[in-house]
Amino acid sequence: MKKTKNLKVVFLGGVGEIGKNMTAFEYGDEIVIVDAGLAFPTADMPGVDLVIPDMTYLRQNKDKVKALILTHGHEDHIGAVPYLLEEFKIPVYGTKLTLGMVEHKLIERHVTDYELITVSNRTVVKLGKFTVEFIHVSHSVAGSVAVSITTPIGVVFVTGDFKVDYTPLGGEIMDLTRIAEIGKRGVLLLLSESTNVEREGYTMSESVVAASLDRIFLEAKDRRIILATFASNIDRLQQIIDIAVRYKRKVAISGRSMLNNIEIAKKVGAINYNEKIMVDIDKIGSIPDKNLLILSTGTQGEPMSALTRMSTGGFNKVKIGENDTIIISGSPIPGNEKDVYSVINNLYRLGAQVIYDKIAAIHVSGHACREELKLIHTLLKPKFFIPVHGEYRHLKQHADLAHMLGMSYENIVIPDIGNVIAVTNKKIAKAAEVKGGGILVDGLGVGDVGNVVLKDRLELSEEGILLIVLGLDRTTGVISSGPEIISRGFIYTGNENSYELMEELRSVVRSSLKKVELKDYSLNQVKVSIVKAVRGYLGRKIKRRPMILPIIYED
Amino acid sequence: MKKTKNLKVVFLGGVGEIGKNMTAFEYGDEIVIVDAGLAFPTADMPGVDLVIPDMTYLRQNKDKVKALILTHGHEDHIGAVPYLLEEFKIPVYGTKLTLGMVEHKLIERHVTDYELITVSNRTVVKLGKFTVEFIHVSHSVAGSVAVSITTPIGVVFVTGDFKVDYTPLGGEIMDLTRIAEIGKRGVLLLLSESTNVEREGYTMSESVVAASLDRIFLEAKDRRIILATFASNIDRLQQIIDIAVRYKRKVAISGRSMLNNIEIAKKVGAINYNEKIMVDIDKIGSIPDKNLLILSTGTQGEPMSALTRMSTGGFNKVKIGENDTIIISGSPIPGNEKDVYSVINNLYRLGAQVIYDKIAAIHVSGHACREELKLIHTLLKPKFFIPVHGEYRHLKQHADLAHMLGMSYENIVIPDIGNVIAVTNKKIAKAAEVKGGGILVDGLGVGDVGNVVLKDRLELSEEGILLIVLGLDRTTGVISSGPEIISRGFIYTGNENSYELMEELRSVVRSSLKKVELKDYSLNQVKVSIVKAVRGYLGRKIKRRPMILPIIYED
Repeated sequence: MKKTKNLKVVFLGGVGEIGKNMTAFEYGDEIVIVDAGLAFPTADMPGVDLVIPDMTYLRQNKDKVKALILTHGHEDHIGAVPYLLEEFKIPVYGTKLTLGMVEHKLIERHVTDYELITVSNRTVVKLGKFTVEFIHVSHSVAGSVAVSITTPIGVVFVTGDFKVDYTPLGGEIMDLTRIAEIGKRGVLLLLSESTNVEREGYTMSESVVAASLDRIFLEAKDRRIILATFASNIDRLQQIIDIAVRYKRKVAISGRSMLNNIEIAKKVGAINYNEKIMVDIDKIGSIPDKNLLILSTGTQGEPMSALTRMSTGGFNKVKIGENDTIIISGSPIPGNEKDVYSVINNLYRLGAQVIYDKIAAIHVSGHACREELKLIHTLLKPKFFIPVHGEYRHLKQHADLAHMLGMSYENIVIPDIGNVIAVTNKKIAKAAEVKGGGILVDGLGVGDVGNVVLKDRLELSEEGILLIVLGLDRTTGVISSGPEIISRGFIYTGNENSYELMEELRSVVRSSLKKVELKDYSLNQVKVSIVKAVRGYLGRKIKRRPMILPIIYED
Repeated sequence: MKKTKNLKVVFLGGVGEIGKNMTAFEYGDEIVIVDAGLAFPTADMPGVDLVIPDMTYLRQNKDKVKALILTHGHEDHIGAVPYLLEEFKIPVYGTKLTLGMVEHKLIERHVTDYELITVSNRTVVKLGKFTVEFIHVSHSVAGSVAVSITTPIGVVFVTGDFKVDYTPLGGEIMDLTRIAEIGKRGVLLLLSESTNVEREGYTMSESVVAASLDRIFLEAKDRRIILATFASNIDRLQQIIDIAVRYKRKVAISGRSMLNNIEIAKKVGAINYNEKIMVDIDKIGSIPDKNLLILSTGTQGEPMSALTRMSTGGFNKVKIGENDTIIISGSPIPGNEKDVYSVINNLYRLGAQVIYDKIAAIHVSGHACREELKLIHTLLKPKFFIPVHGEYRHLKQHADLAHMLGMSYENIVIPDIGNVIAVTNKKIAKAAEVKGGGILVDGLGVGDVGNVVLKDRLELSEEGILLIVLGLDRTTGVISSGPEIISRGFIYTGNENSYELMEELRSVVRSSLKKVELKDYSLNQVKVSIVKAVRGYLGRKIKRRPMILPIIYED
């Protein structure tokens, strides 16, 4: 009896968010990968620069891996492409702008051997047993697509990140007609993003932002305007530049990522402007305030961004004053709130007017709210559903939304990172778990910072480290030098207050050595008894637990 | 010519938020203090337990300090009372519940010598040249008051934290009549809270929460209910207990702070229930799910709270399953989002139904929105205004709101931490800066963790520490032992991958010693050259900058 093949959906990558950075679709001996993005480290990963998907499963199935399909050009969808292509020589499919951004990354990381294949709306690509169609969607970066993957057992529709915007700027409306057609022909499985499932109604159109910005430019007509927004939101950058032209302002750009993205977008035709309106940020001195717009990165309060440095007076090219109107067209990504608000507070302290998302409609989300999600479910009428892109709670809400629309819970699987979900035309179920999740990148090191190191870092950050250095003759029990106590991050030892504590600590170390039979003890046992004595003393005396590291040299 | 005395308002305490934890009012040789609260450490203060106001200014004016006035029983308003009373033997004025909570803190910290004086709505207290009247307001803890301070130059009105709730539960409506009377007689200066100034309209009434909870209890009638809320929100606890009684559920309480607060509230008559409905958390095994409500702390995802431990399966008394409905009646305080959502994700993973503030109206703010703030400004019609309680951006918005209501910007001062603002009946202006802000408390140590220690902790947390231990004879240049390389939080040294790096590091150390004239160098210079060599090597090789600490013993 021939065993029926099933389709496997494998969720790789991610920190907290599930099914976002990388998803593999496997049928028989073929795998296509959708997206290869990175995640940003969370507060419990100090020192980590970025997190790339764990590709162990792909390595184990190297011969099966046929192609990479990209939905759009955001870091969490393309940031790990260089890491993937260093190991897997596979073609990459994406829209012009997406591939422009990818190519920039590949060059930066010195990846030279790659094949990028440009697609556009309704392009159909045959990849072995998979047939992939790209469908234009609205999102906060131009050139975003959903993908419809026809497999031997049915159609799988992957929304990617999207919103339904009936009045988008600079692009077509999401191809709802094609989505309806695909739905009419029958969809086996839907994977839909869930980012805004907690929000009722519809996400506002990008044209709302245009209207707000126009009004602000009008009201601030005699002032210098500094506008920070996301470097990848090409459509928004286009409209901002258009508004600047309308109000006779030159545009100076600050921030490498914005310069790069605008250059890429210009090359692929995703943004259009007359070069004459641009002015070098180093040459803005002669331009009157009312004729200048400074376009900048830094919506997230990144410490090294131009906007953050402006807010602390540390950016020589732009000094903030009372004639500045600063517009932050973005909202803080969860975890960045404190940094963002600190920048706003400091800009206010310098006398500037600051307009941010809490006090004006100058930013809209790029993700679908509940009514938009309902529209997609209703047009596609999938048999099975896997909610993706979000924390577990978002996926659960999205499962409940699908259920509310009439789908049985048996036909819905909420995935988790590392899950393999098997789909036949009759059934969907979790089938296995593989090594998934994120691999931490710190500097040039990939994967060498793991749990032990992070645990050490967090412990060090909580209470610091205390080194106890001494020379010891174990046969006689004589301390030949020390004990010297060195603190880093424990308490400040440069003043008199700590002198007494250090003196007592030395005496604790000395008596801990007197209590044990040194010559019967291994060096390690001696260290353990020192640590025990010091830890006990500090717990009683000051209620703290620094990391304690005895360093003993034997004479 | 006699110099006109002015009123000084001194802003002490605070981390980011201004004018919240402690404010001193000084006239002539008298100071009354309003509130003595603590702030919670931010992410850049690892290991710090809490932050108390810097009382240097009070110490410098010790003889002037006459009394402490408390507006309500939240930590950020009373948490530093024990620290204050340890140094200043002054009477403390507050409502019954506020003082109940204070007394509990004093006992816990073994402060025995104190005088607590109970006040209630419209109580008037004469304190030297100040006459203080207490006025009932609504807030998220019962027993909250505003204070009207009559000084020789006019009336100062301090709102404390408040909201306008026309249908409060368990208490009277905010005494708007009295506020209107005070306004009619003339107010020189208003200090009003600004927390929700970014929000349009009105804050919802606490009775909305009651209605939502009632509906959830009705719908979950066969399920076990676990409800987490703030331990200090006594009115809400009262209504939750009432709902439990109505639905024939016993109440088990988990969490020390909730047990304490309910006991205090019961003692002062702020909460009322029949003891028979309570059941010990250790004895819930025999109670059917549908007859049980577990009331718990942990709305902020605190790692040691019962709810967090339930979410990871680590709380033996309560194992979460599919018949549990978990209600989180609170919203994440900024900075706690990740912890809170992690708890929610994990509860969902265990199969429970979770209801939180994003998906149901089960929490309302305790702070006034813009329309409520306008009401207070309009009733009081102050001559001068100082916005307080908020980050600088909130205070700026609040200043703009007052301006919009007709006040000249000259009559408004936005304070910052440590500011002294001088007020006469003609003028308001910043007069001086004093040492204000927060003093960090870590374990039993108060103030011994400062900038140097925090900088070390953050540096340690980013990249860890690398110890280089060696024995050296500087006269011959012979390395008698080592170099031994010890890593904590740098990379994991327990596997083969790191072996090569460690070996190379040792060789880098050795050659750095060859390059210098050891006998002409001080020990410190030798250390510097080792650090330089290792730092340079690591930067090139792996792009990281751990803290590097050479430990050299000389033979």
